[in-house]
Amino acid sequence: MLKVDLNCDLGESFGAYTIGMDEQVIPLISSANIACGYHASDPLVMQRTVRLAREAGIGIGAHPGFPDLMGFGRRNMNVSPAEAAAYVTYQLGALYAFARSAGVKIQHVKPHGALYNMAGRDYDLALAIARAVQAFDPALILLGLSGSESIRAAREIGLPAAQEVFADRAYMPDGSLMPRNREGAVIHDEEEAVRRTVRMVTEHKVAAADGQDIEIIPDSICVHGDNVKALAFVTRIRRALEAEGVTIAPLSEIV
Amino acid sequence: MLKVDLNCDLGESFGAYTIGMDEQVIPLISSANIACGYHASDPLVMQRTVRLAREAGIGIGAHPGFPDLMGFGRRNMNVSPAEAAAYVTYQLGALYAFARSAGVKIQHVKPHGALYNMAGRDYDLALAIARAVQAFDPALILLGLSGSESIRAAREIGLPAAQEVFADRAYMPDGSLMPRNREGAVIHDEEEAVRRTVRMVTEHKVAAADGQDIEIIPDSICVHGDNVKALAFVTRIRRALEAEGVTIAPLSEIV
Amino acid sequence: MLKVDLNCDLGESFGAYTIGMDEQVIPLISSANIACGYHASDPLVMQRTVRLAREAGIGIGAHPGFPDLMGFGRRNMNVSPAEAAAYVTYQLGALYAFARSAGVKIQHVKPHGALYNMAGRDYDLALAIARAVQAFDPALILLGLSGSESIRAAREIGLPAAQEVFADRAYMPDGSLMPRNREGAVIHDEEEAVRRTVRMVTEHKVAAADGQDIEIIPDSICVHGDNVKALAFVTRIRRALEAEGVTIAPLSEIV
Amino acid sequence: MLKVDLNCDLGESFGAYTIGMDEQVIPLISSANIACGYHASDPLVMQRTVRLAREAGIGIGAHPGFPDLMGFGRRNMNVSPAEAAAYVTYQLGALYAFARSAGVKIQHVKPHGALYNMAGRDYDLALAIARAVQAFDPALILLGLSGSESIRAAREIGLPAAQEVFADRAYMPDGSLMPRNREGAVIHDEEEAVRRTVRMVTEHKVAAADGQDIEIIPDSICVHGDNVKALAFVTRIRRALEAEGVTIAPLSEIV
Repeated sequence: MLKVDLNCDLGESFGAYTIGMDEQVIPLISSANIACGYHASDPLVMQRTVRLAREAGIGIGAHPGFPDLMGFGRRNMNVSPAEAAAYVTYQLGALYAFARSAGVKIQHVKPHGALYNMAGRDYDLALAIARAVQAFDPALILLGLSGSESIRAAREIGLPAAQEVFADRAYMPDGSLMPRNREGAVIHDEEEAVRRTVRMVTEHKVAAADGQDIEIIPDSICVHGDNVKALAFVTRIRRALEAEGVTIAPLSEIV
Repeated sequence: MLKVDLNCDLGESFGAYTIGMDEQVIPLISSANIACGYHASDPLVMQRTVRLAREAGIGIGAHPGFPDLMGFGRRNMNVSPAEAAAYVTYQLGALYAFARSAGVKIQHVKPHGALYNMAGRDYDLALAIARAVQAFDPALILLGLSGSESIRAAREIGLPAAQEVFADRAYMPDGSLMPRNREGAVIHDEEEAVRRTVRMVTEHKVAAADGQDIEIIPDSICVHGDNVKALAFVTRIRRALEAEGVTIAPLSEIV
Repeated sequence: MLKVDLNCDLGESFGAYTIGMDEQVIPLISSANIACGYHASDPLVMQRTVRLAREAGIGIGAHPGFPDLMGFGRRNMNVSPAEAAAYVTYQLGALYAFARSAGVKIQHVKPHGALYNMAGRDYDLALAIARAVQAFDPALILLGLSGSESIRAAREIGLPAAQEVFADRAYMPDGSLMPRNREGAVIHDEEEAVRRTVRMVTEHKVAAADGQDIEIIPDSICVHGDNVKALAFVTRIRRALEAEGVTIAPLSEIV
Repeated sequence: MLKVDLNCDLGESFGAYTIGMDEQVIPLISSANIACGYHASDPLVMQRTVRLAREAGIGIGAHPGFPDLMGFGRRNMNVSPAEAAAYVTYQLGALYAFARSAGVKIQHVKPHGALYNMAGRDYDLALAIARAVQAFDPALILLGLSGSESIRAAREIGLPAAQEVFADRAYMPDGSLMPRNREGAVIHDEEEAVRRTVRMVTEHKVAAADGQDIEIIPDSICVHGDNVKALAFVTRIRRALEAEGVTIAPLSEIV
């Protein structure tokens, strides 16, 4: 039976500030990446988000980021692998505490934003992060960009790894994402994006930027719940996948 | 056999900033209260401090504080019990991650500074903190001011509680600490402080501010490792206790 | 000619987080209290907000708060008067830099949230803040709660002071605000709130909680721009005042 | 008459944390780069440091850095030029407020750590920073690495610029600093470092890495006051310069 996970960043509100339509997107997804207080979120938000995810029965993931609240963790920071690893341990533990106190397990870890992107390209950084996750709990799944250094590092040390794909992004012939600053990097035609996504899941193929098909094996599709349009798109992807007989399931049932 | 714990705040350095003579005080104490990144410390410092404590075989405690790095967690903040509880869960989880990754257990939780003082006087706050600790791990020991609301709250919900006493502070007839702003609140004569401490441990008695003896049952004595003078004082207390046949042991062997 | 200022907190967004309908409320008010990066805002938001206020020709005020982003500056912090004063100087200077770089002047300073409330009741704190403002620029206006310690402290040292009133709050016979936790503290009937406000401005009178009229001399009315309902209320107050011949003018034309 | 400035980072303490022997190094230097609360310092430290510098009669400079207290502003952050400019304006204003309140002027601005290094290499970033300084006060001096993009950008817009040299660093034939990770980048022989420094000031020449002399025109020499050894080195440089008839003077007397 074909299965795929739909993952979404959740719990990004902070103090008096609200981001995201968490309650609306939760019924549409199977795994949540929950911010851990460095790039977004605070303890009350984490507690509330873990409870929402538990009630919905979706997979709970730690979503550690750079200590850059002002930049929402989206700006590259030149931290050492040892610093990055310690930041992941810290944030993973913080989220774990809310999960354990709520009687649920952590399913996965997905680095956020700039940390995700940097680790995807830098093996040493990826390895340090994978080791930090493994040292805490070797059964946790690392969710990383398909074909990236993050996946490679996790696999080399025996940490379960899940490959993430993007519905609305163009792929290069080597399987990497086309950089955002290049023409055509983002697929604005929703119908095409949905079609490509379904094909990645059902045929393990996607047309790369040069028109040739490449193989891609998606464990999880990254979706968003920031606004009404994003919610409509998730709904559409979900329906298209289910119409093809694909089951939406958390990572723990896939990896 | 008479036993008592010597606890000390550790791991208070932050980034380029160093506080405390951790390596020198560790051989003298039996339990460490390790800062968790809110009022002091950062992930690398937490990792290093947990390892130092593990190597020395002393008890490891989480030392959560207010989110007030600029004030070192020493300023009262009017947070709600729910906020305080979530801050404790967050920080406890963060420290737990470093302990678990290093293969050691957390022994206790001691709130820091203003949070410690406020919880000691405010039953609702104390109860929220005790419940947060218990929800994470009901075997953890809450280390609080002897005779305080923190101890009362922990006992009422069945959370193990350890009573802390201070070598250099005067006690009121009701067992509470004399407020710092009152004449005679701090005992500056080291010899007298040592004598009082030994008597608290061996006889369970201390002369209160009115001269009358009151009963006090110390599980742990608070000591400091900030400077050379503090180290000398810990050494002196330790020797005086050992000379009376008292064993210095971590909280886990006492409570 | 009757004049009154309408002041509103602006520029409270932070990084990826948005709060407030600043562009919509600006045409309705005459003075802006611009957050300075401690309890809310960041440098880009401050720069943008100063420019918006300059283009609208409204008075620009610094809105310093506690270093408590997670609590939005709404939680009392037990800082010393010297700390509070230094925090005000820091934030005032930061906002001044954006104003000066944009070619406009700072008109006033209004402490935010818990700092505003604490200074309103604590003369020493109020005095330290007033002195900090005066040391920076003795022509700045301190905007404080009518009848509060803030106003008293400013006047005693010769710092221009402006009295703020609240449209939707009940007043005690001594001119202080009824505490929020008391029945009737907030006036939910918008029509009554508008009527009371107009009367305060035109007759310098308001019915206190005991039904007796007390004298009140409002320099400025606090309004909000957080949501559509708040905007409608400002519009209503503004129209009611203008219908009575009252001119809405910035503090610099009033004090 | 030959003149040169000796500049040193000051006011890097934060809350309960102390860094630097500020009081000891102040008598040895002519300009202070005072941290502004982003990478180090807090409002009370800024206030105290400005007063110390004022009493000593040395030039006061703002030392803005990245919002990275945990990394002491030493880690590259991929901020946009607009973000960097706004961060400089914010911090410059904050320091200005303490200077103005103490009755002294700001003499210069020197970006800190990673911001200094990045701006030295990136013209767009350097230009944004120079424009931010100029927009606040066109008479301020920008202190930058000799021969860097920071100096070039400042000169192109007509902002006074001062060239900084390092006593203990090797220079490349093009006048740039040899990267720290290369063999020989740091000159460990103090005597040689002093000799090179004196020659740069008196002859405007230094032997580059290839042995050839290059021209270098130092306005200011970077020194440190972190520890006893650093203080001894400043003393030595100062004496060697004075022995050659060089006057140590703040930047305002040089540029």
